[in-house]
Amino acid sequence: MKENVFNQEYEITKRDRCIQKNHNALVVWFTGLSSSGKSTLANELDKYLYSKGIHTYVLDGDNMRKGLNSDLLFSVEDRKENLRRIGHVASLFVDAGIVCLAAFIAPFSEDRNHLKEIIGYENFVEIFVDTPLKVCEERDVKGLYKKARKGEIKDFTGVNAPYEKPEKPDLIIDTSKESLNEAVLKIIGYINEKLQLEQ
Amino acid sequence: MKENVFNQEYEITKRDRCIQKNHNALVVWFTGLSSSGKSTLANELDKYLYSKGIHTYVLDGDNMRKGLNSDLLFSVEDRKENLRRIGHVASLFVDAGIVCLAAFIAPFSEDRNHLKEIIGYENFVEIFVDTPLKVCEERDVKGLYKKARKGEIKDFTGVNAPYEKPEKPDLIIDTSKESLNEAVLKIIGYINEKLQLEQ
Repeated sequence: MKENVFNQEYEITKRDRCIQKNHNALVVWFTGLSSSGKSTLANELDKYLYSKGIHTYVLDGDNMRKGLNSDLLFSVEDRKENLRRIGHVASLFVDAGIVCLAAFIAPFSEDRNHLKEIIGYENFVEIFVDTPLKVCEERDVKGLYKKARKGEIKDFTGVNAPYEKPEKPDLIIDTSKESLNEAVLKIIGYINEKLQLEQ
Repeated sequence: MKENVFNQEYEITKRDRCIQKNHNALVVWFTGLSSSGKSTLANELDKYLYSKGIHTYVLDGDNMRKGLNSDLLFSVEDRKENLRRIGHVASLFVDAGIVCLAAFIAPFSEDRNHLKEIIGYENFVEIFVDTPLKVCEERDVKGLYKKARKGEIKDFTGVNAPYEKPEKPDLIIDTSKESLNEAVLKIIGYINEKLQLEQ
């Protein structure tokens, strides 16, 4: 019955929603290892953008895995589906005129490319949080590296599952070398022009 | 590995996002038969709210079935999953401070109750678009009743599948009796107070 899904002509467009908010919509995606600083960066960027009157929303493992994707586990297939769904949700937020900050490991190039296709390359800013594994493991914010090393978690990115580095990310941030403040200013410097509404 | 999903403390809250937009977030759900006027009402309400500076977004079969839910068909199970996912997406929009207008048949009480649980009863406004089947079938905007009567579509709500009327909807609208303008004013009258931010 797929051919029976019809378009309703809605009159308020994405552009109208952007005009209302006075900025463009974007997805800023933080990819990198566990404990690399993705969520911390997303939170700090969120605070900054909010203070400037930008309408944002943050997607991360917390609000996705516990709600929409609570039926998914951590098999290769489920991780792919997890990201596919996140991509479509981010795309809806962009359509709603929102700057969507997404903090997910997304270790495979193929999945990240699929995300860009779903969201649109022109709407997608890829930030590679390239904090060295050693530093991430020392931080081990959630104690997951420890569990992975003990073999209690299998397929843990960086330990017993690969992380494919982005080939051409828009920005690279190493939180072991750059302060949070420096990193946020770098991101702002990059996205500022993209946020300007075309006249 | 579900127990390994952690909460990141994000500092910008739902309330902050509502303060930025200067109104509360809500889901306004239009339930009713095909061709009952759900999408038309959602579009008209969207235009009105937009003109008043309210930040809205519309979810309907078009943007859901073609993206996030493109893997789902029309079996009982898939329809249930379709609505579950829409519920979680609407819930994310509410968390982002947005007034989310949703236009979906949602024929079963059980599914609608599940939606209310996901989204939160306090955030959910249920509008029953109670246009008589006869009128819907005469309109047959998408030619689907014709196909269903010919047996080309099975399980078509109102023809060969049931529609369970909401027991206690917040509002009932019969578009064969009320003009679009009257209906929108009725909805506004109902949601106006809910949109006011508590001080």
